[in-house]
Amino acid sequence: MTQALPCPPHRLLLEPIVRRALEEDLGRAGDVTSELVVPAERRVEALLRTREPGRIAGLICAEAVFRLLDTSLEFRFDVQDGSDANAGSGLATVSGLARSILAGERVALNFVGRLSGVATQTRALANAVAGTKARIVCTRKTTPGLRLLEKYAVRCGGGFNHRFGLDDAVLIKDNHIVAAGGLARALERARAGAGHMMRIEVEVESLDQLEEALRLGADTILLDNMSVDDLKRAVEMTKGRAVLEASGNVTLATVRTIAETGVDYISSGAITHSAPSLDVALDF
Amino acid sequence: MTQALPCPPHRLLLEPIVRRALEEDLGRAGDVTSELVVPAERRVEALLRTREPGRIAGLICAEAVFRLLDTSLEFRFDVQDGSDANAGSGLATVSGLARSILAGERVALNFVGRLSGVATQTRALANAVAGTKARIVCTRKTTPGLRLLEKYAVRCGGGFNHRFGLDDAVLIKDNHIVAAGGLARALERARAGAGHMMRIEVEVESLDQLEEALRLGADTILLDNMSVDDLKRAVEMTKGRAVLEASGNVTLATVRTIAETGVDYISSGAITHSAPSLDVALDF
Amino acid sequence: MTQALPCPPHRLLLEPIVRRALEEDLGRAGDVTSELVVPAERRVEALLRTREPGRIAGLICAEAVFRLLDTSLEFRFDVQDGSDANAGSGLATVSGLARSILAGERVALNFVGRLSGVATQTRALANAVAGTKARIVCTRKTTPGLRLLEKYAVRCGGGFNHRFGLDDAVLIKDNHIVAAGGLARALERARAGAGHMMRIEVEVESLDQLEEALRLGADTILLDNMSVDDLKRAVEMTKGRAVLEASGNVTLATVRTIAETGVDYISSGAITHSAPSLDVALDF
Amino acid sequence: MTQALPCPPHRLLLEPIVRRALEEDLGRAGDVTSELVVPAERRVEALLRTREPGRIAGLICAEAVFRLLDTSLEFRFDVQDGSDANAGSGLATVSGLARSILAGERVALNFVGRLSGVATQTRALANAVAGTKARIVCTRKTTPGLRLLEKYAVRCGGGFNHRFGLDDAVLIKDNHIVAAGGLARALERARAGAGHMMRIEVEVESLDQLEEALRLGADTILLDNMSVDDLKRAVEMTKGRAVLEASGNVTLATVRTIAETGVDYISSGAITHSAPSLDVALDF
Amino acid sequence: MTQALPCPPHRLLLEPIVRRALEEDLGRAGDVTSELVVPAERRVEALLRTREPGRIAGLICAEAVFRLLDTSLEFRFDVQDGSDANAGSGLATVSGLARSILAGERVALNFVGRLSGVATQTRALANAVAGTKARIVCTRKTTPGLRLLEKYAVRCGGGFNHRFGLDDAVLIKDNHIVAAGGLARALERARAGAGHMMRIEVEVESLDQLEEALRLGADTILLDNMSVDDLKRAVEMTKGRAVLEASGNVTLATVRTIAETGVDYISSGAITHSAPSLDVALDF
Amino acid sequence: MTQALPCPPHRLLLEPIVRRALEEDLGRAGDVTSELVVPAERRVEALLRTREPGRIAGLICAEAVFRLLDTSLEFRFDVQDGSDANAGSGLATVSGLARSILAGERVALNFVGRLSGVATQTRALANAVAGTKARIVCTRKTTPGLRLLEKYAVRCGGGFNHRFGLDDAVLIKDNHIVAAGGLARALERARAGAGHMMRIEVEVESLDQLEEALRLGADTILLDNMSVDDLKRAVEMTKGRAVLEASGNVTLATVRTIAETGVDYISSGAITHSAPSLDVALDF
Repeated sequence: MTQALPCPPHRLLLEPIVRRALEEDLGRAGDVTSELVVPAERRVEALLRTREPGRIAGLICAEAVFRLLDTSLEFRFDVQDGSDANAGSGLATVSGLARSILAGERVALNFVGRLSGVATQTRALANAVAGTKARIVCTRKTTPGLRLLEKYAVRCGGGFNHRFGLDDAVLIKDNHIVAAGGLARALERARAGAGHMMRIEVEVESLDQLEEALRLGADTILLDNMSVDDLKRAVEMTKGRAVLEASGNVTLATVRTIAETGVDYISSGAITHSAPSLDVALDF
Repeated sequence: MTQALPCPPHRLLLEPIVRRALEEDLGRAGDVTSELVVPAERRVEALLRTREPGRIAGLICAEAVFRLLDTSLEFRFDVQDGSDANAGSGLATVSGLARSILAGERVALNFVGRLSGVATQTRALANAVAGTKARIVCTRKTTPGLRLLEKYAVRCGGGFNHRFGLDDAVLIKDNHIVAAGGLARALERARAGAGHMMRIEVEVESLDQLEEALRLGADTILLDNMSVDDLKRAVEMTKGRAVLEASGNVTLATVRTIAETGVDYISSGAITHSAPSLDVALDF
Repeated sequence: MTQALPCPPHRLLLEPIVRRALEEDLGRAGDVTSELVVPAERRVEALLRTREPGRIAGLICAEAVFRLLDTSLEFRFDVQDGSDANAGSGLATVSGLARSILAGERVALNFVGRLSGVATQTRALANAVAGTKARIVCTRKTTPGLRLLEKYAVRCGGGFNHRFGLDDAVLIKDNHIVAAGGLARALERARAGAGHMMRIEVEVESLDQLEEALRLGADTILLDNMSVDDLKRAVEMTKGRAVLEASGNVTLATVRTIAETGVDYISSGAITHSAPSLDVALDF
Repeated sequence: MTQALPCPPHRLLLEPIVRRALEEDLGRAGDVTSELVVPAERRVEALLRTREPGRIAGLICAEAVFRLLDTSLEFRFDVQDGSDANAGSGLATVSGLARSILAGERVALNFVGRLSGVATQTRALANAVAGTKARIVCTRKTTPGLRLLEKYAVRCGGGFNHRFGLDDAVLIKDNHIVAAGGLARALERARAGAGHMMRIEVEVESLDQLEEALRLGADTILLDNMSVDDLKRAVEMTKGRAVLEASGNVTLATVRTIAETGVDYISSGAITHSAPSLDVALDF
Repeated sequence: MTQALPCPPHRLLLEPIVRRALEEDLGRAGDVTSELVVPAERRVEALLRTREPGRIAGLICAEAVFRLLDTSLEFRFDVQDGSDANAGSGLATVSGLARSILAGERVALNFVGRLSGVATQTRALANAVAGTKARIVCTRKTTPGLRLLEKYAVRCGGGFNHRFGLDDAVLIKDNHIVAAGGLARALERARAGAGHMMRIEVEVESLDQLEEALRLGADTILLDNMSVDDLKRAVEMTKGRAVLEASGNVTLATVRTIAETGVDYISSGAITHSAPSLDVALDF
Repeated sequence: MTQALPCPPHRLLLEPIVRRALEEDLGRAGDVTSELVVPAERRVEALLRTREPGRIAGLICAEAVFRLLDTSLEFRFDVQDGSDANAGSGLATVSGLARSILAGERVALNFVGRLSGVATQTRALANAVAGTKARIVCTRKTTPGLRLLEKYAVRCGGGFNHRFGLDDAVLIKDNHIVAAGGLARALERARAGAGHMMRIEVEVESLDQLEEALRLGADTILLDNMSVDDLKRAVEMTKGRAVLEASGNVTLATVRTIAETGVDYISSGAITHSAPSLDVALDF
C-alpha cells in the first residue's frame, strides 16, 4: 500500500493535548530532580531511539513537547512519522539545556511509544491484507482525549479513518434499529433528516438483514461479527451495490482470510484500544 | 492482598477529563444518528456488562459521562471499582432517555475498558506475588492525559502508586548521575536542596553502584534491569538499610521469582502503557 | 415543510458558549446598576416577547443564561424553538430575583434575537421553495464562535445543514482543482485518501466542468453561480446521476426560480452571515 | 469626522477568540480536502479582496488566523482597519503553503466580512450626521462572544463606544426605576454606592421624566424613543446641563434629523446586531 | 458608615477562581492524608472561626469551596460577609463527610483569611475618617488573579472601589502627560476619544498643576503625594469645581488628618497589597 | 545561607498565571488611557526600581507580562530573582512602545511587589537563624492561585518548601488522629497505603504525644505550638531519631530562640499570607 506520508494534525489542535500532558507530569513544582542535581548551564544532545522494530508515529508530539518547554531547544527529525524503523535506530535528536530535555523526556516518550504502538499494529494488519482490495480502518474505540492523535497514528500505519466522532456520519446500529421500529424506518428517518454531505452506514448481523438493507438501497453496510462463509455470501449477494465493511474477530491470524472474501473495509478496535506501546528511549 | 476499595479522584479533577472526552466524541453536531433515528421521548434501561473476566475500574467515569450529558439519567453501580467480575456479569445500569444514553455509550465504554484493562493487568501481577512482601507499583509511563485515572486503576488492581509526576519526589537516574559528576555529588545536591517532605530515590544498575549508594546513606534504591541473582545479592548486601525497588523485565512469568529475592517493590510500566482494554459493552 | 422540532445541541456544548457571553457582559464587577438600584430581595416575573413576527430559535440559550446566573430562577418555555410567533406574542417566562433577571436580560435577548433572525431568514427561503424538491442548506459562512448555534437556527427555520467544518466532508473547489492540476487528479486523490464515511462534493462553474465531473463519476456536485438556464441544462445533463446543489445569487426573489430548475439543494450564506436580528424584548 | 485609526485590541484578548473560531472550523480532522487534494509543498500568494465598497475592519483577525495556523505564512496589510475600500480592491496579501492558507480562508473571511459589515453600517450613520455635533454610539446589542471586536469595528466605522458591559457604568432604565420605587430613589442609591470613577446615565421616556431627571441633577440622560419634536424640546429644556443621548428609530433615513435636534449622542443597536456582512473573498 | 451588606460577585465569576485554588491544592492525587487515615464514611461538623477580631469577607468563597468539592456537604453562614466578628466567634458551619471537609479546609481558610484581612484594614481606615465626607477607595494594586475578590473585600470593609481595570475609566498620570506633550493635550485627546460613559481623572503633583487642571475643566483630580497643607490649599482652590482624591502616605496615623482637609476620596494601595491575613481556623 | 539562585518555574506553568492577571487588568477594552493619550509610535525605556531595600522575586513574571503583551518589547534583567537590592536600585529595564509598557506596568509591579515581599520576609527569618542548623520552610497558607509563585519566592528568600499541596506528602494532624481513633492507627493506615515515595509527617502538641510518635517509629514530626522549653525537651527526647519541625508563634523576635533549641525546620505561614508588598515602581 503506497501512499504519501500522512498529514499531521494542525499545531493549533496538537498543542493543547501536549500542553496538558506536560502539566500533568510537571505538576506544580516541576522537575525537581533535574533542578536539584543537574547544573543549570549543562547542555546535552539526546537521541530518541526505538528499541524495537516498528512503524513510527508521534514524533510531532515529541517536537511539540520540547518546543513548549523551552524554545531554545533544537529538535531534528531523523525520520518522519509514518516511517518504519529497526530496533536501535535513531528517530530524532534534541539538543540544548539538559534540564529542559530531562523535564520533557518522559512525556515525549509516552506519546511516541503509544502512537507508534498504534501505528505498528495497524501496519501489521495492513501488510497482511496487501494485494487484496480491503483497507484497514479504525473505530471510535480510542483512548479518551487522544482520538485525534490515534487516528493520525492509524494513518501512519497505513490504515484509514472511520468516523472521528458521533457527528461526522450516520451509523445505524442494532440498538438504533430497535428503537426506530425496524431497519426500514430507521433508514427512512436518517435519509429524511441528514444533510446531503453526511454518509449513512447500516450495521447488519445476518444475511437476511443484509438483504433487507440492500433492498432499501443502503449503500454502505457494516457486516458485524459474521463468519467468513457469510462474508463471502454477503459479497456475492451485494454485487457491488454497496460498500461493505467487516468487523469482529479481526486479528492478525484472521484478517487475510476476511480480506479475501472481497469486502472493501475491515475495521479493528484493537489497533487503538489494545496496542502495546513501542519501546522507545532517550539516550544522552 | 486485602485492602479497602481505593479512594476515587475528586469529581473536581475527574470531570474535566470526562468532559474533554465527550467533546471529542460529540464534535460540533453531536450524536446525529440517534437524533435522526431514535424518537425523542424513547426511554430505555441499559446494562453495562463485561464480556471477559477482569478487575473493574472506571465505573466512576461512566457515571460522570452520563451525568454530564443529561442530569435526568439514573446511574446505578452494580459493583464498585476495584471489584472482580466474571465474563458476562453486569457492572452498572443506566436508565433514561435513549438518545442521551446512546450519546454517551462509547465514551463510557472507552473509559471502563481501558481502566479495567490496567486494573486487570495490575491484579495479575499482584496476585502472582501474593505471600511475598513485594508490592507492585506503577511508573510515569502512562497515557498522556490519563495519569490520574490510570494511577487510580492501578490501585483498583491491588497495586501501589509511584510518583504522580516529576514534582512529588526526587528520582536520580543514570543521566542525572552523569550530569552531576557522580552519584556522591548528585545525592549531596539533592539532599541539600530538597525539602524535608520529599523522598529521594537513587537508581543503580550494578552491585558496585549499590554499594556506593548504601555507603552514601541512600534509603530508597531502584535496582534497574538486574538479574535475579544480582537482585538476591542486592537484598543481602542491603540488610534492610534501604527500601529496594526492582524494575525491568517484569512479566507475569518473572514477577514471582523477582519477588522472592526479597525486594520491597517491583515496578512495571507495562501495566499502564501496554494493558489491553477489557472487553465491555452496553446492552439495551 | 413539516418536520419534527429540531434537536437542540447538548448542554455540554451549549453551556461554554453561553458562559463566555455572560462573562463578556458581566466583566469583573457584574451588573452594577441593578446591584446599586434594585433591592436584593425584589422578585419579578418577566416575559420574553417578540415585537416582530418570525421563526423562533435560541430560547434554549436564554434558559441556559438564567440557569447559569442563578439556579433559583424559574424559566418556562411558552413556545419551543422552531415555532412561528406573531408580533407581540410571549416566548418564555422567567421569574425570581429581579437582580438576577436583569443581569441576564441582554445576553439572553442577544442570543434569541440573532438566532431567531437566522431562523426567520431560513424559513422565508424554505417557504418560497415549498412544493419543489429543493432543500435550503446553509454554509460555513457563520459568525465566528456561533457555528453550532447558527446551524441549529437553520434547522429551526426548516433548512438543512451543510458541512459543520472543514473536517466532516470533502468539498473540492476551484482553488483545489488548480492546485491539484485538474479535476480528474483532484477527485482521484480525494477518493484514494478519504475514508469511506466521508462524502466528496465537487464545485463546477460551467456545463463543461459539469460534464467532466459526471464523466469522472462525481455523485455530489455544487453548481456555483450559474444562470437559471444553465441550471436547467445541468439538471437535464445529470439525469439523476448526481446530487446537485446550486449556490450564488440566492435571494427571496430568485430562490423559487432556482428551485424549479430541479436542483436538489440550494445553499445560502446570507441566512447566517447577513440575517438581521429579530426584535425581541423582556418585559417586567 | 477625522480621527486617527482606531487602536486594535491587544493580541492577548484577540487571540483566544480567533483560536476558538479556528477550532470550530477545523474540528478534529482539520482541512481534509486540502490535505487530500493539494500537494504538501505547493506555495501560493493569495489576495484578500472586497467585492463591495465599504469601511474595512477585522484585518487584524485575518492576520491572527494565519499566524495561529502556520507561523511560516507571511501576511501583508495592504490597507489598515478603518480604511475605506472600493469594490474589487485588495485588502491584504497572504503567502506561503497553500494548505495552510486554504485551512484559514473561511475563518479569516468570516471575521473580515462581519466586522467590515459593522464598520460600514456605522460609517453610513456617521457620515449622515457629519457637520452636526452628534456622535454615533453603539450598544450592548452585540453578537455573543464578539463584543470586543464589534466595538472595535464601530470605532473603525467612525463611531464611539457606549458601555462594554454591565460593569463599566451605571445605566438606570425603566425597570430599574420601577424596582427602586421612583427615579429619585434610584438616582440617590446609585450615587451613594457607585465609585467616583463610574458614570451614571438615566433613561427617560417623556419630557416630564426629563424634567425630573434634570431637577435631580442627572448629568447624562438617555432619551428613549422620543419623537423628533420632543427631542428638540428636550434639548431646549436641558440647556446644556446634561449630556443627551437619543435612541430608538435610528435609521439612515432618520439619523440626520435626529442629529439636527441638537442631541450629543445617537445610539444604534442595528449597527451591530443587524449589519449585513461585507462581501469579501480570497483569490489565489 | 451605615450601608447595606455589599453585593457579592456572581457565582459565574467566583467559581472559576475557587476551582483553580482547589486544583492547586489537590494536585493530581488529592488529599492523600485524609484518604489514607480517615474512614470513608466518617461524618463531622466543623466550625469556621476567627481567632482575632476583624471585619469578615470571603465566606462566599468558603461556601463555594465546599460545594465544588462535594455537593452533599451542608454549609451554613453564621454571619454574613461584611460583618464584624470578635476573637473566637463562629463564622460558618460545614457538616458532612470528614474527608471532603478536610480536603477543602486549607483553601477555604486561605480565602477567608486573606479577604478578611483586606476588609479589616479597610474598615480601620473607614472608621478613622468617620464623620468627614471622605471615602476610602482602593486601587489596582491587588493580588494578581484576585482583583474581583479583593475589590469585594474592600466593599465589605466599608470602602469604595476605584477602577476595576485599565478599561473602565481614564486616569491620566504623569507618564501620560509627558508622553502626550502636556496636560492640555492629554486632556483634549482623552475627551475627544473617550465615550460619554467613561470618566476622566487627572493626576497632579503640585498646586500649579492643579490650577492648570482646573482651568482646563477637569472634574476629577487625583492629588498625588501632597502634604497636608497643600491638600488644604487644593481644596480651597478647587471650590467644589472638581472631585478631589488624595493618595500617598495614607496610614492609620495620617488618614484622619488627610480627610479633614476636605478631600472627597482617599485611596490606599496598602489595604489590598499589604493587608496581613486574618487568623481563622476550622475546628471539628 | 549560601545557595545557588533558585530555579524558576517552567514558562508553561508561569504563563497562564500571568495571562490571567493581564486579562483581569485589561478587561475588554484594554488600556484606554494610553490608547487615547499616548501617540501610537512613541517609544520609551522604563526602569523597574525598588524604593525599599529587599530580597527580589518575581522579575520572571514581569518579563512574561511584557512578552505576552507585545513581543517587540525588550526586557533586560539588571538583577536576578533571589538577589538583594538597595532602596532605589534598578531591577530591570524594558524598552519599546510606550503604550505596551504602560499597559503592563501595574500587573508587572503587582507581581514583583508581592513576591519580593514574600522573599524579603523569608530572608529576614533565614538570616535570623543563620549559623544554626534550622531551615525556614513555608506552609500551604498561600494566596489562592499563586502557590507556585509564592513557593518560588520563599526559595528566593533563602527558605525551603514544605508540601506544594495535599497530594505530595502525608501530614497527619490532630483532626486526622481523632478521626482515625488514635495516633497508632493513623500511622499504621498511612504506612499501609502510602506509596514508598511519599513521606509521612505527624503533628504532635505535647511531649507525651511526641513520645508516642517516636515509639511508633515516626521519622518526621511537627511540633505544633510548643514552648521553647518543650522544644528543647523534644530535641533531647528525640535524639536524632526523627526530623523535627517547629511551628507556631514564629516571628522575627522568636525565631532565633526557636532555632537554638536544635529543631531541624521552622515553618511560618506569615511569610506567605501576611508579607507586606515591597514598594516597587516603573520609571520612565
